[in-house]
Amino acid sequence: MKYNKIIKKVNNELVAFGNLGNVASYIPELSAVNTSKFGVHLTTIANQHASFGDADEKFSIQSISKVISLTLAYKIEGENLWDRVGVEPSGTPFNSLVQLEHDLGIPRNPLINAGALVICDILITHLSSPKEDFIAFIRQVSGIPTIDYCNRIAESEKSVGYKNAALINLMKSFGNIKNDIDVVLDFYFNLCSIEMTCKELSQTFLFLANYGVCPFSKEIIISRSKSKRINAIMQLCGFYDEAGEFSFKVGLPGKSGVGGGIVAIHPNKYSIAVWSPKLNEKGNSYKGIKFLDLFTTETKFSIF
Amino acid sequence: MKYNKIIKKVNNELVAFGNLGNVASYIPELSAVNTSKFGVHLTTIANQHASFGDADEKFSIQSISKVISLTLAYKIEGENLWDRVGVEPSGTPFNSLVQLEHDLGIPRNPLINAGALVICDILITHLSSPKEDFIAFIRQVSGIPTIDYCNRIAESEKSVGYKNAALINLMKSFGNIKNDIDVVLDFYFNLCSIEMTCKELSQTFLFLANYGVCPFSKEIIISRSKSKRINAIMQLCGFYDEAGEFSFKVGLPGKSGVGGGIVAIHPNKYSIAVWSPKLNEKGNSYKGIKFLDLFTTETKFSIF
Amino acid sequence: MKYNKIIKKVNNELVAFGNLGNVASYIPELSAVNTSKFGVHLTTIANQHASFGDADEKFSIQSISKVISLTLAYKIEGENLWDRVGVEPSGTPFNSLVQLEHDLGIPRNPLINAGALVICDILITHLSSPKEDFIAFIRQVSGIPTIDYCNRIAESEKSVGYKNAALINLMKSFGNIKNDIDVVLDFYFNLCSIEMTCKELSQTFLFLANYGVCPFSKEIIISRSKSKRINAIMQLCGFYDEAGEFSFKVGLPGKSGVGGGIVAIHPNKYSIAVWSPKLNEKGNSYKGIKFLDLFTTETKFSIF
Amino acid sequence: MKYNKIIKKVNNELVAFGNLGNVASYIPELSAVNTSKFGVHLTTIANQHASFGDADEKFSIQSISKVISLTLAYKIEGENLWDRVGVEPSGTPFNSLVQLEHDLGIPRNPLINAGALVICDILITHLSSPKEDFIAFIRQVSGIPTIDYCNRIAESEKSVGYKNAALINLMKSFGNIKNDIDVVLDFYFNLCSIEMTCKELSQTFLFLANYGVCPFSKEIIISRSKSKRINAIMQLCGFYDEAGEFSFKVGLPGKSGVGGGIVAIHPNKYSIAVWSPKLNEKGNSYKGIKFLDLFTTETKFSIF
Repeated sequence: MKYNKIIKKVNNELVAFGNLGNVASYIPELSAVNTSKFGVHLTTIANQHASFGDADEKFSIQSISKVISLTLAYKIEGENLWDRVGVEPSGTPFNSLVQLEHDLGIPRNPLINAGALVICDILITHLSSPKEDFIAFIRQVSGIPTIDYCNRIAESEKSVGYKNAALINLMKSFGNIKNDIDVVLDFYFNLCSIEMTCKELSQTFLFLANYGVCPFSKEIIISRSKSKRINAIMQLCGFYDEAGEFSFKVGLPGKSGVGGGIVAIHPNKYSIAVWSPKLNEKGNSYKGIKFLDLFTTETKFSIF
Repeated sequence: MKYNKIIKKVNNELVAFGNLGNVASYIPELSAVNTSKFGVHLTTIANQHASFGDADEKFSIQSISKVISLTLAYKIEGENLWDRVGVEPSGTPFNSLVQLEHDLGIPRNPLINAGALVICDILITHLSSPKEDFIAFIRQVSGIPTIDYCNRIAESEKSVGYKNAALINLMKSFGNIKNDIDVVLDFYFNLCSIEMTCKELSQTFLFLANYGVCPFSKEIIISRSKSKRINAIMQLCGFYDEAGEFSFKVGLPGKSGVGGGIVAIHPNKYSIAVWSPKLNEKGNSYKGIKFLDLFTTETKFSIF
Repeated sequence: MKYNKIIKKVNNELVAFGNLGNVASYIPELSAVNTSKFGVHLTTIANQHASFGDADEKFSIQSISKVISLTLAYKIEGENLWDRVGVEPSGTPFNSLVQLEHDLGIPRNPLINAGALVICDILITHLSSPKEDFIAFIRQVSGIPTIDYCNRIAESEKSVGYKNAALINLMKSFGNIKNDIDVVLDFYFNLCSIEMTCKELSQTFLFLANYGVCPFSKEIIISRSKSKRINAIMQLCGFYDEAGEFSFKVGLPGKSGVGGGIVAIHPNKYSIAVWSPKLNEKGNSYKGIKFLDLFTTETKFSIF
Repeated sequence: MKYNKIIKKVNNELVAFGNLGNVASYIPELSAVNTSKFGVHLTTIANQHASFGDADEKFSIQSISKVISLTLAYKIEGENLWDRVGVEPSGTPFNSLVQLEHDLGIPRNPLINAGALVICDILITHLSSPKEDFIAFIRQVSGIPTIDYCNRIAESEKSVGYKNAALINLMKSFGNIKNDIDVVLDFYFNLCSIEMTCKELSQTFLFLANYGVCPFSKEIIISRSKSKRINAIMQLCGFYDEAGEFSFKVGLPGKSGVGGGIVAIHPNKYSIAVWSPKLNEKGNSYKGIKFLDLFTTETKFSIF
């Protein structure tokens, strides 16, 4: 299969760029990871696979789970969702709190922390057992029944989660959080703690490359129109303050996490996951972004 | 041709939404326009055409010209361009000046006013007769030798251009403007004054749907890679504070102007221009955005 | 005594200005107050008294207690205090959170909420029984053994205190809060709940008009130099975004609370307390400020 | 006279603190000054004098002139002045431009650059020959007919004045500048270029220590009430982002300039000017502030 060849070729080129950056140090558990780990897995909508390196090792997907929680909340709430969270990129990070004040507690989009907290609040309102129901949904989407939370990571994040507590309290003061703050934060930190391998992550996101339909089970996870809109949000908001750079260089909708994972999808083609723990100064995997940059250059295909 | 049918159908649906919003009133000349004007023109890369309404009437393309000046500067400077201007969306409009201060005079992207002023500065440095050379370039790109500046509009904008003068002075204080401020502002206001019909506008942008090659003359306007990157920038930054909303609903790279024009391109397919002078609260054509929203819903195709 | 005459005269003039503004509505318990209440009490350092209206009725002094908690923390910590909180006015209210981010969790001054929370944190570190010890201090300063917290008000504030929880969590994320957040918030809301009459309030602040010495007991509450510095902080930071206006019109160091109380001191002369529950748009007692404006105009004395 | 003794004593103590900081380097002409210069001059309202060091050498008073231009504009416009400029401290410097945008072109106070530009605009509207009339006023206030502008300094500032051009253009876009921008900037840069000795500066400000009356000529420069209000503004806004620190440590109304000069007044007592060119990180004379800190500690008198 040709993708295997391209991945190998790109990995040879990648050596020249080293393994720069630093692991996320503010979360005690994440800073202990082996920084030389590197894995890639690509799954096509025809269920072909290409793999490289540590593609079968679990890592913490962190913020990448925000796309799946958004999917479930969007499925439940429909377009009403957008009364409580925007779809615009967030601009410079230094104004996250002032933006919330300016916009009266409405976060700019569902992929920044503030927005993901609102999504968690919405899910808690609708789900009878939020944690159980959510992990069941992610297992359904991916077709992998063993995907789970990591308690140790969740607790580690909770122990230093003051910035998120500041955000949620500010939104609560504007009335944009309906449930108990501690319950929402607990759910949020659990979502961030989910662990997957590159292969699992690439399979989990494949429905977004397939217009909302799980290519394995043929189940409609979400409508074609909503699936495209989630991709549009990933394109504009998936990489914090580096969304433009990623669009510019890689040209695919995607999402990164501070655990060093990145997933990107090419509509109607494939879903690809990369993992390398060291982060650049914008908080995205240094080697992961370089890999995808070279990979789409090599394939000559992007959405643009 | 099928696009003609779709455009007609969409226009019937469009009636239900009225013609809300207001014309740009801060520029004296623009506020005098007939607000009932409405035109659409689509050109495919195979040179097929579909048209509706006032598609052959000239209007002021305003900020839409920023994409063409970016194209020329990128062609000349290559990737060095990005030392002086970013590729990130700009976030909320209320922080445009504070962003420039925070980033030491480097604008977030080339499609906001500050960034377009830097692009003008770069062109002035490189072109021997900036105004003549630029209009020659736009005529080459479009294949239309009659496209021109509108002096009356340029003067009208200059007479109230204090906000732009504030931006350029701030950037000059950080050393990111090399030429005389008055010369750069004069060039900038002229670029904004260019007039086109919907048909002309749609033809002018066709090279970006065709990976950098003018489909009429077969000339390479800009490389395939750079062409995709310009599309990526339009996708993330083309609609001020409504870029996310446009991506979300329309799903195509595009650019709007306060004259009520919008152009959008579907890579490898077509370029479409819409014109309706009344603007929504974010400064984009109210009816133009509605039209494109319904149009891509109807065609069922977007880049996502 | 002449002050009695002046107060009477000023009250006659005051009628012309009405009783505009609104009571603080965000705290349920405060919004229930009788808005026609109005009291004034002046105490000289020679223990002479002048009184008017509801001067012997208790009201919630709210943020005015921040000056007394600052006094106790300054007495304990000395100049080390200023490592954790600044002495600069805070500027426009819309940037309170962005300021904390910019200054890495160091509040601008001890009289804004963020600063007062840091002061509470410091007191908790040093006092064995913070609530008991603090109320004992305020009784010592005032010579009034019956001054106390109001549990009902404290609980009412706690039930809506999300903005303060946002501030303290943000500071904790920067390491500028050492104790448990809930303990600090509980102490803080209790401080805000203290009730006094105008007479009691005027007596409580008299040590600041007397260079740090309680004029009744002759005890040194705080050193002469520190007493002056607390006055300087009140002058620059005592009235939120209206500090300049108050200095400009009244010309005395003072502090207001959202319960409608204001206290001001004239060094070496007197301490004066006013109470009127309706607040202007900046959150300070409408009638209280008008009264003091007319009062210092009439006496022809201010610190300038 | 006792002040001479105190000044000598303080200068002995001052040695221990060195001569830290840097001269203002952004204005070419200012960076050429001899950094070891140091002068002090105190004038009492009874016309007694105390002097030290280079007290008779001219230096550029820079922003200190903003107090005199405010005095003249306040005298002419009365309380209407405050429709166009506020009286509140400006908060952190990083938000000067965002504040102007937030407050629709109304500067926070007349002593920051934006506010001083509005004052210049007002004077140009009212004076028939602004430059001549203003220097005549300053000569009248000081009783010194030789005080003058320094053309060389004015031109030097104009050549790098892009930040001020940004501010005035932004205010013009909001309609808060009535005259031609270049005319206002020229007047502004001339005001900043005025040169005085410490002795002259101390005499110039004596009317503000004497409730508006020039103690030499007995002329009323400005009313008692307005004189006090100008002092209040100096107290809260005279030292940029160090106003709180200055109030806290020195406890007198005052104003500094980037030429290294500081003037402070003690109402009903004296006016004191200090000059030392090296600035601390907040842009105020390092040694000048230290001197005044020690001086008021020694005299034991401040307004608090």
